[in-house]
Amino acid sequence: MMQKEMIFHRPINEYAYGYDRDTLHIMLQVKHDDVEAVELIFGDPYNFTEKTWNYEVKPMMKTGETTTVDYFKVAVEPPNHRMRYGFRVTGVNGEVIFYLERGIFTEPSTEIGDYFCVPYLHAVDNFNAPDWVKDTVWYQIFPERFRNGDDTITPAQAKDWGEGVITPRSFYGGDLQGVLDGLDYLVDLGITGLYFTPIFKAKSNHKYDTTDYFEIDPHFGDKETFKKLVDTCHARGIRVMLDAVFNHSGYEFAPFQDVLTHQQDSKYKDWFHIHAFPIVETPRPNYETFGFVSRMPKLNTTNKEVEDYLLRVSRYWIEAFDIDGWRLDVANEVDHRFWRRFREEVKAVKPDVYILGEIWHDSMKWLQGDQFDAVMNYPLVDSLLDFLVTQEIDKRGFIDRLTQLLHMYPQNVTEHLFNMLASHDTARLITQAGDNRAIAKLMYLFQFSYPGSPCIYYGDEIGMVGGEEPASRACMVWEEEEQDTALRNYLKTLIQLRKTEAGFSSQSNFSFVENDSALLIYQKDASHAIYTFMINPTAQSLPLEDTPAGETLLSTASGD
Amino acid sequence: MMQKEMIFHRPINEYAYGYDRDTLHIMLQVKHDDVEAVELIFGDPYNFTEKTWNYEVKPMMKTGETTTVDYFKVAVEPPNHRMRYGFRVTGVNGEVIFYLERGIFTEPSTEIGDYFCVPYLHAVDNFNAPDWVKDTVWYQIFPERFRNGDDTITPAQAKDWGEGVITPRSFYGGDLQGVLDGLDYLVDLGITGLYFTPIFKAKSNHKYDTTDYFEIDPHFGDKETFKKLVDTCHARGIRVMLDAVFNHSGYEFAPFQDVLTHQQDSKYKDWFHIHAFPIVETPRPNYETFGFVSRMPKLNTTNKEVEDYLLRVSRYWIEAFDIDGWRLDVANEVDHRFWRRFREEVKAVKPDVYILGEIWHDSMKWLQGDQFDAVMNYPLVDSLLDFLVTQEIDKRGFIDRLTQLLHMYPQNVTEHLFNMLASHDTARLITQAGDNRAIAKLMYLFQFSYPGSPCIYYGDEIGMVGGEEPASRACMVWEEEEQDTALRNYLKTLIQLRKTEAGFSSQSNFSFVENDSALLIYQKDASHAIYTFMINPTAQSLPLEDTPAGETLLSTASGD
Repeated sequence: MMQKEMIFHRPINEYAYGYDRDTLHIMLQVKHDDVEAVELIFGDPYNFTEKTWNYEVKPMMKTGETTTVDYFKVAVEPPNHRMRYGFRVTGVNGEVIFYLERGIFTEPSTEIGDYFCVPYLHAVDNFNAPDWVKDTVWYQIFPERFRNGDDTITPAQAKDWGEGVITPRSFYGGDLQGVLDGLDYLVDLGITGLYFTPIFKAKSNHKYDTTDYFEIDPHFGDKETFKKLVDTCHARGIRVMLDAVFNHSGYEFAPFQDVLTHQQDSKYKDWFHIHAFPIVETPRPNYETFGFVSRMPKLNTTNKEVEDYLLRVSRYWIEAFDIDGWRLDVANEVDHRFWRRFREEVKAVKPDVYILGEIWHDSMKWLQGDQFDAVMNYPLVDSLLDFLVTQEIDKRGFIDRLTQLLHMYPQNVTEHLFNMLASHDTARLITQAGDNRAIAKLMYLFQFSYPGSPCIYYGDEIGMVGGEEPASRACMVWEEEEQDTALRNYLKTLIQLRKTEAGFSSQSNFSFVENDSALLIYQKDASHAIYTFMINPTAQSLPLEDTPAGETLLSTASGD
Repeated sequence: MMQKEMIFHRPINEYAYGYDRDTLHIMLQVKHDDVEAVELIFGDPYNFTEKTWNYEVKPMMKTGETTTVDYFKVAVEPPNHRMRYGFRVTGVNGEVIFYLERGIFTEPSTEIGDYFCVPYLHAVDNFNAPDWVKDTVWYQIFPERFRNGDDTITPAQAKDWGEGVITPRSFYGGDLQGVLDGLDYLVDLGITGLYFTPIFKAKSNHKYDTTDYFEIDPHFGDKETFKKLVDTCHARGIRVMLDAVFNHSGYEFAPFQDVLTHQQDSKYKDWFHIHAFPIVETPRPNYETFGFVSRMPKLNTTNKEVEDYLLRVSRYWIEAFDIDGWRLDVANEVDHRFWRRFREEVKAVKPDVYILGEIWHDSMKWLQGDQFDAVMNYPLVDSLLDFLVTQEIDKRGFIDRLTQLLHMYPQNVTEHLFNMLASHDTARLITQAGDNRAIAKLMYLFQFSYPGSPCIYYGDEIGMVGGEEPASRACMVWEEEEQDTALRNYLKTLIQLRKTEAGFSSQSNFSFVENDSALLIYQKDASHAIYTFMINPTAQSLPLEDTPAGETLLSTASGD
């Protein structure tokens, strides 16, 4: 018997969404290997002839299978942008049922109210991230460590570039002029987007403790240099994304200092979440903070003045400098209402600005179209590591995880996710990969052929190593003889393929290919061609029994 | 073996939500009769001692069972308004597993990233409907048919009150003065809220084809009378809710008339969805409409001018007349973005105004806190009818449906749903109940003891009958000898019990009681007392084997 209690659909989130202004995507989830075929029954809610509802039937496609569930999807374009619908499900046992909102039926219900409903597809409600993001190849820069281009603004306490042991308080003098100086290198690599960790005035080397949201940190440069940097990037086909730290301010932020000075009499006392006066910082602060870090007081983003202030910041850097994106630090701890307003404001200034939230967990709540365009896709890299490095999961486990990941958000969300393999918040990729460069390469191959927007953490492309911060934030190595140029060239090739071959990009459909070998095989269907990718997760050579016909675009042997 | 693939949680919607500013509700769904116990494992995401995450464990309560699934819930108050969490699940077979966001584990993971996350509970993001709604007893008035209080404004073509056959185009002369005149009757009944179908200027008798959103229909009265009506209602403890028809306008709406006259040159051409000029109405309109009704052109609520206009309307009737709620017609076909703005605007004017959407299907998308306070709970009445009248479902089927209904939205949503048994869009309740008044009474008993805000459709309380419109919209019968006064008195009793006994209200917890008889038994737990309700759905007497101790508040025999 079909396991009917495992059949699931609800007209929300990844199960029913507008893909574009005329197209709806509908997904059904069933028990694995329990269902032979699924068809969508759909029609206009008001289209009756002689009291009979007129519906159409369209087959759904199986888009993924895990050990426990199978996913079926279909795209439909209801002519009046509205539809009632249900599912005709044929079990592997031949049983046929109709799965509707109000239960399971043995024949199509004649009551329209029994069906699921997409009452009206309004384009304005669709998840709608900027088109350019899918094809952008990002490079993340930690400005204090990328390049020193102007030693007149280098902090007095800075050590010589790359010298000494890096500590949480080290300075080396990287700056914006350094990035300008390094642009040729980035263009040569093929980069089309730069994501900067914070550049606003702050005490620390990482600048996540903002002192002034309207100023460039003086050790990084000035507004003139930044303007020149953005303009030059744009002229060279590179977008620029800045990091906004709106969950908390730095300790030196003037309003917080004012509260420290004037306590309950400060006009800024409601800018933060202060539980009692006088303010104390130990053993634990009596005001809310990022984590329990007293030097990072949490901003009260539900306060109208704070909201207005931060929205002003958000508009300013777009209006005055034409930046292309905002990466939002600790985005999950700020209220949704603020982010809805943020989206309205920044998109009004620049409709195709990219809004990327830092969220490490299930982010569905932020990806419904009214808040973010993307989140940082940490589950992707973690699955790759669990499969290829720690081997906590086998090929089947990896396919399960990835299939789930590919079906947990609407397709247009998946196509815009920010796919980094490492960041300033993790160890460097090669270190994560157990110093195994062959595995790192396979991870890059997967990253660059997977839907979403790939990002490289500065220096990872030349083989820099290092554990979690501060080790992961070492100075960029510019001496070619100290770079892993083979790795860099491999990445250049991947970036090139991503740009020139549709099968590497977000434009083609990803699917795993079941096979009996240890090889992980997946395909990208680019309409005009099918691209087949084969990854050998073992340390041994594996025979290729059924080599697909066609051209070989890339072969990554462990010796490469 | 535990059927692990049936275990489900996701940190969204009814599964994880803020119940109030400090309390989170967490729900887990498992296969029916598969799980012995569930405990929540939770702790502050940043609370580590010596690299060990400090978590607490709290038992979860089974709050409902269906044929296929069991629901477990728990309320927690994380001190810093944030938590990571997972579930310790003990199977009936003794097996113990840990169900986390990143999979199923045999022991609690030491990786914080494996757990589910509620990153921060912001009260501003909570679903937050006005408190007064839970305890309000509504009465729905179709103004053209409730009472004629001023014959100087009666339409010329009106028939004598209650005379002749009602047609879709009949007029009888009901008006606002009539409602004022009928207030003593409503107060006597115990009503505390009036919901009016539209009262704005329109051609039809039902007024869902608005001509002017800023004017009272002249056959209903003027603004002075309406002001007096609202003020008098307020003085007598009755709230007033109006019906807003924002999905479409009437054909005579000035902007649409302007488009008909000036075609593509009209400055209002973008106020509608017009596919081509010249405008044609047959065989199907070449502009979007409600259903395929050419006389109801769909408004383009994504147009800034339309949005501003409708928001002005929304504010005006609150600001100038102090109304207490908006019922939103065809709310599901208007864009979500518009409703988000609508909420912000009307709540800014009157924070405790009630926003009720007309949606007949799964309404989760509108009930996340950013749009509506409630929807019309048609699934409730349909389940009662299927159980008690058509007997399409048996007691088990009814419990399944209601248990699902009680768990498909957050609890604070359920407590504010608008529970009507009939409306201007259905047949009258007694007619729906197959003219069986005993069954109608049982349905009222259920309605008045179920969480949510109950509503009576005018005249249903005195036993009026009639199929779907126009028959359901007959003139209110005022002659006492023609009223079913027994039914009216029964409803008065229910209304009274709802107000005086916590066990009848939304303040107590609803649960079904399993038993072997044909009786449907459910309890309301009001902390200080347990209220037991027993419904005999059969036409026969049934023995009461275990009569609970305590007082009998109400006994409804079919002869009553």
